[in-house]
Amino acid sequence: MKLNIALLAGDGIGPEVIDQAVKVSDAVAEKFGHEIEWTPALTGAAAIDAVGEPYPDETHEVCVAADAVLFGAIGHPRFDNDPSAKVRPEQGLLKMRQKLGLFANVRPTFTFPSLIDKSPLKRERIEGTDLVFLRELTGGIYFGKRGREDNDNTAYDTCTYTREEVERLARKGFEMALQRSKKLCCVDKANVLETSRLWRETVQKLEKEYPEVQVSYEFVDAVAMRLVQWPSSYDVLITENLFGDILTDEASVISGSMGLMPSASLGEKTSLFEPIHGSYPQAAGKDIANPLATVLSAAMMFETAFGLKDEAEAIRDVVNKSLAEGVVTEDLADGGKAYKTSEVGDWLAKNI
Amino acid sequence: MKLNIALLAGDGIGPEVIDQAVKVSDAVAEKFGHEIEWTPALTGAAAIDAVGEPYPDETHEVCVAADAVLFGAIGHPRFDNDPSAKVRPEQGLLKMRQKLGLFANVRPTFTFPSLIDKSPLKRERIEGTDLVFLRELTGGIYFGKRGREDNDNTAYDTCTYTREEVERLARKGFEMALQRSKKLCCVDKANVLETSRLWRETVQKLEKEYPEVQVSYEFVDAVAMRLVQWPSSYDVLITENLFGDILTDEASVISGSMGLMPSASLGEKTSLFEPIHGSYPQAAGKDIANPLATVLSAAMMFETAFGLKDEAEAIRDVVNKSLAEGVVTEDLADGGKAYKTSEVGDWLAKNI
Ligand SMILES: CC(C)[C@H](C(=O)O)[C@@H](O)C(=O)O
Ligand SMILES: CC(C)[C@H](C(=O)O)[C@@H](O)C(=O)O
Repeated sequence: MKLNIALLAGDGIGPEVIDQAVKVSDAVAEKFGHEIEWTPALTGAAAIDAVGEPYPDETHEVCVAADAVLFGAIGHPRFDNDPSAKVRPEQGLLKMRQKLGLFANVRPTFTFPSLIDKSPLKRERIEGTDLVFLRELTGGIYFGKRGREDNDNTAYDTCTYTREEVERLARKGFEMALQRSKKLCCVDKANVLETSRLWRETVQKLEKEYPEVQVSYEFVDAVAMRLVQWPSSYDVLITENLFGDILTDEASVISGSMGLMPSASLGEKTSLFEPIHGSYPQAAGKDIANPLATVLSAAMMFETAFGLKDEAEAIRDVVNKSLAEGVVTEDLADGGKAYKTSEVGDWLAKNI
Repeated sequence: MKLNIALLAGDGIGPEVIDQAVKVSDAVAEKFGHEIEWTPALTGAAAIDAVGEPYPDETHEVCVAADAVLFGAIGHPRFDNDPSAKVRPEQGLLKMRQKLGLFANVRPTFTFPSLIDKSPLKRERIEGTDLVFLRELTGGIYFGKRGREDNDNTAYDTCTYTREEVERLARKGFEMALQRSKKLCCVDKANVLETSRLWRETVQKLEKEYPEVQVSYEFVDAVAMRLVQWPSSYDVLITENLFGDILTDEASVISGSMGLMPSASLGEKTSLFEPIHGSYPQAAGKDIANPLATVLSAAMMFETAFGLKDEAEAIRDVVNKSLAEGVVTEDLADGGKAYKTSEVGDWLAKNI
């Protein structure tokens, strides 16, 4: 199979971790007889520096032409400290999501037995946790009308959803639930918000088409609690953009494996795969960042974008092996030997 | 001093836990030479049943005439299972907040040494946690324009804030920080939302008036993570209505003492005090609910509404004593003797 992949390394540690995912993907491709064509393109602060835009048109064209996008991380402290900056790396992210139509952000949270004790939560609370959030990514208050009124004295943001937007996301949730334990939780604030009531109505209608799936409806505040109390009670959760932003980040810390969590953002045509961690500027250029989340994002890409399950499994296996054998970066070394980012990547590629 | 207090017991376990807070408050009043006049009034499902309204005008008048309001809990499962119900207990809550102008919800999260091991988090993560959220309670997306458009195909909600609303809440935060460890965290999503940018601007201006307070600005998704990772790193946090709803619930489970957490909702004229737990209908009428959160809410009332610090301290002391001596309800009994709700109340009142 010929795989045409856009490669958006981004900022900070992005380029370093992306390099390892490329090595591992190339090794898998060789083993299984595929050919990957990588097309690099600029995003984030790197793109602002080069062409004044965090998601340039040329990058968009590369993404549209590709079968999938592998993404590193974006963000630079220079912009955080300057609230007046007109162009910001995050705008590139939002523009990219919208222009590529990446409406469903898939964020699994699972545990690695060897890392469970790194969690802030007690072992007995998280053992067996294996949940996945589907966050709507191109609608809601992120993309609604906003502005100032009343002589700059009032600010407003608008959250909008159409039935189609909700249904498209919810369907993915139902389908994912069918592949898993057939439990779906719709997270909303239907006791207050009209958009949440539309979500609930739409999901309730879909229930009839998926009688095997057991659906629950929970308020976002209750989920924020129960995620910490009993994360393993959840399976597939669907939610709107802003709630998803908050809850997926919360969920990511419970497993103790945050540095390892991959994600996918699915569109009708293109899909994008990226680690959930940020650009971690303090570590940039030091060859110390943990590349596993990006490598596991590549595994998601093989499986989700190309339907190549064995290839994905091969990557996951070698990641598990590296953890078991202690071939890990300093964040996981626990007093043992700390390998460099590039050494971990080399080891994984060799052991595929 | 003469204390005129409106008593809104509400639904479920509300009446039972309120009874104990009344006993304890009366005992404190007697000891310190105050006279309390309690004026009961209906709210929630109880009020819907009686007069068809979850927050009737008569109740509002009682609250307005009082110096403070002590509140139990509202909510009834009958309404949860009926999405078509036109009047719902929660509407009473929102109407009450708005009509009484309760703009600042104060939610402390602290640990009781004897309960630390009940937390889902590891002891070393939560020891020393003592934070307080100030949630804006009468603005934002809870009270903005909402509706349907496009033939019922689109729903929208509007989040609106004025500078005055933000400043009023933020000032309380700065003042609270001055009383505590002089650290204030403003939680927003200023990288996306216009209302958040207004929050940030307003808080930044106020910084000049409170040079002793050290202010940080964090995104809501990052706070949702760090609350679970390092709760003890926070002190005073201010935030808008919806973020506050989610984060205060999340914060409430980290200490292991959720059943004990009190809260206050402050207005320009009236203030209301209530436990953070819900109406817990399964336990209603069984005399088993834990009354301590309501009793500690009464302590907040003495201190905040009446400036009676010694009285508040006397209540907190007797609560600590009951925990130390194991005079607790079944949720805290841990294999030891489980006291009834009313027995705990009697014991507290006697030992004041
Ligand atoms: C950077 C920011 C705009 C973005 C979001 O809120 O979506 C980030 O938090 C994320 O979750 O990918
Ligand atoms: C019942 C609901 C409307 C309410 C809210 O969202 O404010 C509750 O969750 C709370 O936090 O007091």
